[in-house]
Amino acid sequence: MNRHWQQLKNKALELSYRTANQHLRLAVTGLAGAGKTAFITAIINKLLLVSPNNSKQLPLFSVCRDQRLLATKRVLQPDLQLASFGYETALNQLLAETPQWPPSTTNISELRLAIKFRPAQGLLAKFLDDTSATLLLDIVDYPGEWLLDLPMLGLSYQQWCDSVWASIDNFRLSPYFEAFEAKVSALLPDAEASDEQLAMVAASYQQLLLDMVQQQGFYLAQPGRLLLPGDLAGAPILSFFPLLPQQLMAEKWVSGSIYRVLEHRYREYVAKVVKPFYYDYFAGFDRQLVLVDCFTALNRGKAQFEDMTRALNAITQSFRFGNSSLLRRLFAPKIDKLLFAASKVDQITRDQQGNVLALLNAMLAPGRNFADSAGCSVETMAVSAIRATRPGMVSDNEYGEQEVVTGTRLSDRQYVTLYPGQVPRHLPDETFWQQQGFHFCDFAPPKVDSAEDFEHVRLDHLLEFLLGDKLQ
Amino acid sequence: MNRHWQQLKNKALELSYRTANQHLRLAVTGLAGAGKTAFITAIINKLLLVSPNNSKQLPLFSVCRDQRLLATKRVLQPDLQLASFGYETALNQLLAETPQWPPSTTNISELRLAIKFRPAQGLLAKFLDDTSATLLLDIVDYPGEWLLDLPMLGLSYQQWCDSVWASIDNFRLSPYFEAFEAKVSALLPDAEASDEQLAMVAASYQQLLLDMVQQQGFYLAQPGRLLLPGDLAGAPILSFFPLLPQQLMAEKWVSGSIYRVLEHRYREYVAKVVKPFYYDYFAGFDRQLVLVDCFTALNRGKAQFEDMTRALNAITQSFRFGNSSLLRRLFAPKIDKLLFAASKVDQITRDQQGNVLALLNAMLAPGRNFADSAGCSVETMAVSAIRATRPGMVSDNEYGEQEVVTGTRLSDRQYVTLYPGQVPRHLPDETFWQQQGFHFCDFAPPKVDSAEDFEHVRLDHLLEFLLGDKLQ
Repeated sequence: MNRHWQQLKNKALELSYRTANQHLRLAVTGLAGAGKTAFITAIINKLLLVSPNNSKQLPLFSVCRDQRLLATKRVLQPDLQLASFGYETALNQLLAETPQWPPSTTNISELRLAIKFRPAQGLLAKFLDDTSATLLLDIVDYPGEWLLDLPMLGLSYQQWCDSVWASIDNFRLSPYFEAFEAKVSALLPDAEASDEQLAMVAASYQQLLLDMVQQQGFYLAQPGRLLLPGDLAGAPILSFFPLLPQQLMAEKWVSGSIYRVLEHRYREYVAKVVKPFYYDYFAGFDRQLVLVDCFTALNRGKAQFEDMTRALNAITQSFRFGNSSLLRRLFAPKIDKLLFAASKVDQITRDQQGNVLALLNAMLAPGRNFADSAGCSVETMAVSAIRATRPGMVSDNEYGEQEVVTGTRLSDRQYVTLYPGQVPRHLPDETFWQQQGFHFCDFAPPKVDSAEDFEHVRLDHLLEFLLGDKLQ
Repeated sequence: MNRHWQQLKNKALELSYRTANQHLRLAVTGLAGAGKTAFITAIINKLLLVSPNNSKQLPLFSVCRDQRLLATKRVLQPDLQLASFGYETALNQLLAETPQWPPSTTNISELRLAIKFRPAQGLLAKFLDDTSATLLLDIVDYPGEWLLDLPMLGLSYQQWCDSVWASIDNFRLSPYFEAFEAKVSALLPDAEASDEQLAMVAASYQQLLLDMVQQQGFYLAQPGRLLLPGDLAGAPILSFFPLLPQQLMAEKWVSGSIYRVLEHRYREYVAKVVKPFYYDYFAGFDRQLVLVDCFTALNRGKAQFEDMTRALNAITQSFRFGNSSLLRRLFAPKIDKLLFAASKVDQITRDQQGNVLALLNAMLAPGRNFADSAGCSVETMAVSAIRATRPGMVSDNEYGEQEVVTGTRLSDRQYVTLYPGQVPRHLPDETFWQQQGFHFCDFAPPKVDSAEDFEHVRLDHLLEFLLGDKLQ
C-alpha cells in the first residue's frame, strides 16, 4: 500500500515535471517591410536581458513584473534543416556606429530560447523542488507572402487566372505590365508548349510581380515563391503565369498544349509548394504574430492601402480553421492565439496611437470573425519593438500646442522634428486620399550604448498576450 | 484463328512501338572548372542542328553518318522541381560580340531532347509504318562535388575527422587555415554546444573550403554542400566541421556536448543530404559522363594534381556497384556506361593528345577495375566540345619544326601562338614538377558567325559511345 502511494506520487511528480518543461512554437510573420527581423531581434534581446534584478522594462509582462522570470538563454534549435534566425548579425547592425535596420527575411528561420521561471502557484509550484520550470520557446520567422498563396488551394487554374486579373488596374501602374501582357497575348493557348517559351513569359511575370511589391508598394502577389524562389529558381514548377481572360474560352484543350501545361504546373505548385508549407510548418505552430506596417501603406495611397487590407484578410483565411475545408483537409490546426500588431507605432505622435488600433481593427473586420469563432483568440495591438523617436510638443501660431515626434530621419540621417499627420480611425474615404494628409517618415534606429538601452512601446503587453499563460 | 493472329500481330506492333520510344537519362558531371556548361551546350547544339542534309560534322556518330538521324527538338522536361538547363543563355554568351564561356553549374538542372531517327534494321525497322523512332534523351547536369561526399556514408563522425586531417598539409597552403584551426582549438568538445558558436566555427571552415577550391585549386572538400548551400544556407545541418585529432580522445561524451552535437549533425547531413541525392537522382541515371580538366591541375602543381587524382578515384566509388555495400543498400543501380572525358584537348598540340588519354588512364587506374567488373562499361576519351584554337607549325632555330596552338588568350584577348608543353604519359614524377614543364593557357571561345560554325574534337566518338546503341 505504501509502495502504491509512492508510485502515485512519483507519477504526479513526473507529470508536473513534464508540464514544467513546456514547449511553445511562436510563429512571426508580416508583409514586406513590416520590420519582422528587427522586431524578433528586439523580443529576443528583451527576454535574454530580463532577470529578477532587471524586471522594470516589461511592467505588463506578469512573469517579469512578479520577478518570477529567472533567466533566459538561447539553446539548440530543433530543426536542423531550417536556417537559424540571424540574431547576432541583426543585433550588431542595430548597435553599429551608424545603426542600421537589419535586412528583411528571405526564407523561413528559427531560434529556440529556454525561459526559466518560478511558477506562480498551484500544483506546479508545490511539486517542484527547485521551484523553477522551463518554457522552451521556438520563434519561427517566415515571409507573410507564403500565407497569401492559401486561396490557390481552392481555385482551379482558370479560376486563379480570373482572380489575378481582378487586380488588373493595379498591374497597369507598373512599367513592366505592358511587356508581360504583350508576351502572354502572343501565346496561342492550344499550341504545343515549350520550356523555353514558358520560362521567357514567366520571367516577365516575375519582373512584374517584383516591381509591384518592391517599387509600386503592393502586397498581393501570386505565386508568392516567384518573389523569392531559392532552390526552385529556373524550375518549371515556378514557370507559370495567368493567361488572359480571352485566352481561356476554349471548351477542350489538347494534351501538351500551353494551357494544359500551365494548368499542370499550377496544380503541382499548389501540391508541392503551397501545401507542404502548411503541413510541414504551419501545422506545428502554437501561436501566431502578424506584424503590420499601416503607415507605409497610408503613405503610398489608396490602391496600395486597399491592397494591404485585402492581403491581411487573405492572411486571416489561414486561421479560419472552423470554416475552411481547405486547411482542415491538411491537418488538425492548433494555433490558439493570433495577434495582429501594428508596428513602428513610435513613428507617429502619441495622440494618434489609439487611432492606429481602431484603423487596424477596421481593416481586419471582414476576416476577423471567422478566426475568432473557431476557438482561436484574435487580438490587435499597436506596438514598437525598438523606439526610434521621442515624443515632443511644439507651439504653433496657427494650431497652438501640438504633439510631434523627433528622431533621425533614415534617408539623410538628419535629426528632425515632425508632425506625421492624423491617422484615420476608420477605413479612409476619398476625402482622406484627396487631402494626402499623411506624411509618415522612416526613422533610423536609435544610437544606443548597449543592447540594454533599447526602448519599446507595449512589447510587454504583447509578450503577456502571447506567452503570459504559459509562464504561470 | 485469324483473330488470334491479328492479336499477336498487334501485340508485336505495340511492343515495337514501345521500344521505339525509348528513354535515356544521361548524367553529366565534372569537378570545378571542367567546363560542363559549355560542354552540354555544345552537345545540345550539335544534336539540334543535325539532319540527313547536315550530317558531316559527326562522322563517327553512326546514326548521323548513316543519315538516319532525322531531327532533334527540345521537349518539356520531366521533373518540374529541377531547374531547366540554361541552354539559350549559355549559347547566347558563346555567340556574343565578345564570346564568353558560360558560368559554372551551381545546382542540378536538366533538359529533354526528342531525337527522331530511322532504325537501322531488324524488327523495329520492319514494324514501324513511318520507319521512324524517337529517343527521349534527358541530360542532367549536377556538380561533381556531390559525388565526393559518398565516402561519408561509410564513415563515423570520428573516422571522417581523421580522413579530413589526412589532407592537413594541403589545408596549410590556405591563408584561412590558421583562423579555422584557432577557432576549433578553442572549443572544449565536452562543453555544452550552442548554435551561435558552432555557426561561427562552421563559417570559418566554409571560408577555408571555398579558398581551397576557388583559390588554391584543390578539388576534395567535404561536406560538398558547404561550397554551394542553396536553401540550406545558415541551417544547422551544414553547421559542422572536423574536430582536431587531439580533441577526439575522450571515452564518453556527454549528451548535448559539442562533440555529440557535431556528430549528430554529421549523421543528419549524411542521411538527409547525401543519401537523398543518390536515391532521388543518381538511381535514375542510365549513363554517366564525367568531364576532367587535366591541364589546369597540371598547371597548378603536384599537390593539386594528386588531389584531383584522389578526387577522380573517389568519384569512381559511386560506380562500384558490385563492390560497394554503401550504394547497394540504397538502390538497384542501372548505370551501364561510364565515360571519363579529358576536356579542352584542343588547347594542347595534336602530338600531345595521345598522352592526355594515357595520363587520364593512369590517374583512373586505382578505381577503374571496380566499376568495370560490376557490369558497368568504363571508357576514357580526350575531347573538346568547342574548339577554341587552331593547330599550327613553327620553325625554331633550336628545335626545328614544332607543333603549336594559336588562339585568343582569355585573360587579355590577345591572339597568341603557343607551345603549352609536353603532357606526361604517366603520373608525373618529381622531375616533372621540378621542371615545371607545362604552361597551359586558357583560351577564349572562338568568334563564330552562327551556332553551326562551332567545331569540336571527337564529340562524335563520345556521342557514339554514350548514345549509339540506343539509336540503332
